[in-house]
Amino acid sequence: MIKVGIIGVGTVGTSVANILKENADVISARAGRDIVVKSGVVKNLAKERGLDITLTDNVDDILNDNEIDIVVELMGGVDEAFEVVKCALESGKAVVTANKALLAYHRYELQDLAGNIPFEFEASVAGGIPIINALRDGLSANHIESIMGIMNGTCNYMMTKMTNEGVAYDAILKESQELGYAEADPTFDVGGFDAAHKLLILASIAYGIDAKPEDILIEGIDKVTQDDIAFAKEFGYAVKLLGIAKKDGNEVELRVHACLIKQEEMIAKIDGVMNGISVVGDKVGETLYYGPGAGGDATASAVVANIIDIARSGKSTPMLGFNRPMEGNTLTLKSADMIESKYYLRINVSDRAGVLAKLTKIFETHSISIETMLQRPSEDARANLLISTHLAVEKDIQAMMKELEALDFVHAKPVMIRIV
Amino acid sequence: MIKVGIIGVGTVGTSVANILKENADVISARAGRDIVVKSGVVKNLAKERGLDITLTDNVDDILNDNEIDIVVELMGGVDEAFEVVKCALESGKAVVTANKALLAYHRYELQDLAGNIPFEFEASVAGGIPIINALRDGLSANHIESIMGIMNGTCNYMMTKMTNEGVAYDAILKESQELGYAEADPTFDVGGFDAAHKLLILASIAYGIDAKPEDILIEGIDKVTQDDIAFAKEFGYAVKLLGIAKKDGNEVELRVHACLIKQEEMIAKIDGVMNGISVVGDKVGETLYYGPGAGGDATASAVVANIIDIARSGKSTPMLGFNRPMEGNTLTLKSADMIESKYYLRINVSDRAGVLAKLTKIFETHSISIETMLQRPSEDARANLLISTHLAVEKDIQAMMKELEALDFVHAKPVMIRIV
Repeated sequence: MIKVGIIGVGTVGTSVANILKENADVISARAGRDIVVKSGVVKNLAKERGLDITLTDNVDDILNDNEIDIVVELMGGVDEAFEVVKCALESGKAVVTANKALLAYHRYELQDLAGNIPFEFEASVAGGIPIINALRDGLSANHIESIMGIMNGTCNYMMTKMTNEGVAYDAILKESQELGYAEADPTFDVGGFDAAHKLLILASIAYGIDAKPEDILIEGIDKVTQDDIAFAKEFGYAVKLLGIAKKDGNEVELRVHACLIKQEEMIAKIDGVMNGISVVGDKVGETLYYGPGAGGDATASAVVANIIDIARSGKSTPMLGFNRPMEGNTLTLKSADMIESKYYLRINVSDRAGVLAKLTKIFETHSISIETMLQRPSEDARANLLISTHLAVEKDIQAMMKELEALDFVHAKPVMIRIV
Repeated sequence: MIKVGIIGVGTVGTSVANILKENADVISARAGRDIVVKSGVVKNLAKERGLDITLTDNVDDILNDNEIDIVVELMGGVDEAFEVVKCALESGKAVVTANKALLAYHRYELQDLAGNIPFEFEASVAGGIPIINALRDGLSANHIESIMGIMNGTCNYMMTKMTNEGVAYDAILKESQELGYAEADPTFDVGGFDAAHKLLILASIAYGIDAKPEDILIEGIDKVTQDDIAFAKEFGYAVKLLGIAKKDGNEVELRVHACLIKQEEMIAKIDGVMNGISVVGDKVGETLYYGPGAGGDATASAVVANIIDIARSGKSTPMLGFNRPMEGNTLTLKSADMIESKYYLRINVSDRAGVLAKLTKIFETHSISIETMLQRPSEDARANLLISTHLAVEKDIQAMMKELEALDFVHAKPVMIRIV
């Protein structure tokens, strides 16, 4: 059994504890052992959190606990977090962190301190998207030519709203603060600093570049107005805050700023609070990773994946990812007959009175309800009926198709396409 | 040093050998040791391949070679490949394969045979996209609710062409065959079987489900006509061949078929030969992985990533992915001043004669060339000039911005946004 201590039980920390409990079946099957949270550190012990783990306000209770194998650092900030993580590593505990500021400043010192002790940080960049995993392991055969990403959901939400609804910058910033997407002091997000921290972490993995935030170009979205958005639209661009890393000979450029980007690019199509990162490798070409960049559960998904990695590394990961079957929760294959879907049908019929009535009657007897219907003329006094249905069951559709095919006023085998 | 033997030196095998050589700097830095191809098996020894590795037409030359650590199986097919891989595992060699058909039928037997010997297969699904990696490691904290993917580039190319250019199915199939996207017998692609093999592999990792192709619903795109495309467009859908896995209580449904999918969905926006897979986890929500699903170099990128994983696993992977610095190829940070970009500028000027001439003169002295210009009136006899430039250098733009700001006919600090 692996025991975890969480330092900083806020939104993400609470999600980590909940996921390890709620998804214990699949997690222990994948990890090959049970993983439990033994204790957590909070600032305010009086606050009710609804968790059944031991809480303390003294970080040493976790750092000095020999039973704890993995320390999850979610306290945020740079200097204090560095001391805590250093102390954990010195006592041989594995560390998982979501702290991008800590890594933006201290990732190489931490790599040296960690040595052979596992130190993981998937959640530090783009929340639930496994981009560290993809870049470090999945694309390891490539020289990385460029990384271009929407790494801050708040900025992307604001740019999307300004574009789609014509809202002014100040109004949308206020709304974002009310929705909790932006902080009371929004500088860290809208000034590009949050994205810059993430970019620096990715640049180390792609290029081995040790740069600090003060070394690179960082600008925000605070100067963007509706005039700019109008221009962008007129010339086929979207406006996005992007973090960009680009290899140019033996140099790497790193920068965060608002960009106009052609609407056809995949990254331009990513709207709202979502994150997306495009990585171009010299061999693989462009790959793109999309998902939620923030939120308690999404971020905790990445933290827990790292915990599972560490738990697994004692033994080699089995090829298909499960170290043993899930207990009491065996999944079985659903019969294809019982799959539910909406359906689109194309039926070639004689174009004469009474046909539609007969046809719709058949739909009714098979419990299939029509959502939309278009009729188009085809050759020889025939018509194509193009029909979409409400939710129906595969076996009912198949039975109806057979019945339709046998009718004298149906002239070709009806065609069916499922609607997602 | 790790020695590799390639069984089946065709397009992908040649790319694997080339990547290991061309990218040896970054690969050995990431793996912590050198990796070389010792030999390869081909059917026809007479054919010139331009490779400096030993070639043989006898598979036993690799299987019985004690110096070879990793066997890369790229011969394709099911039964013979199974025997070869089994033999490699029995002699303790790690295996990397891109063979989806082999895995669609034998993945659980192979997992049992492999035991603690590394057996990797990233290239078997969606070519260069590290989807196995994401699903097995990155999303391991989640119950996977659904997987929905464009897993066959040929079909996606054909559907995209039919949609965008109104080409008939038969014409576009012929074109795809001429371009080499589709085989002379295209059934494996357009019939959905290729996508089904990939879906079955993903379903094992997500759900631990052991199903075979004959157990699941498989249909192709061969019935789709321009009538269907017209209907889809009319109601805001795209037409795609999707592989779908969906958890429904304790059942999992697996199916491959043509689908209508709302154009707003990210997966509907993936066009041409590209692949894309959307994965919904109960904790992370939706994530999506996009990239090239075929091609020698893209597929080999995944094969080589697996080889690196295996080479690394002797020692623990360092946090930032490099086991040692790259020799003779140290990357440095490019000065922010020297970054090249196109730029968009918004300049608020007095709306009077001569202003535009003075302004464009200043652009010229800073070697900045204008691509487009819009003028919009603003309040108080002023105008906003909205300008996009051709490629320019950051320091020139910054210097010009300073000069512009100091002019008496420029009324606010000019705003600049970079164009990607």
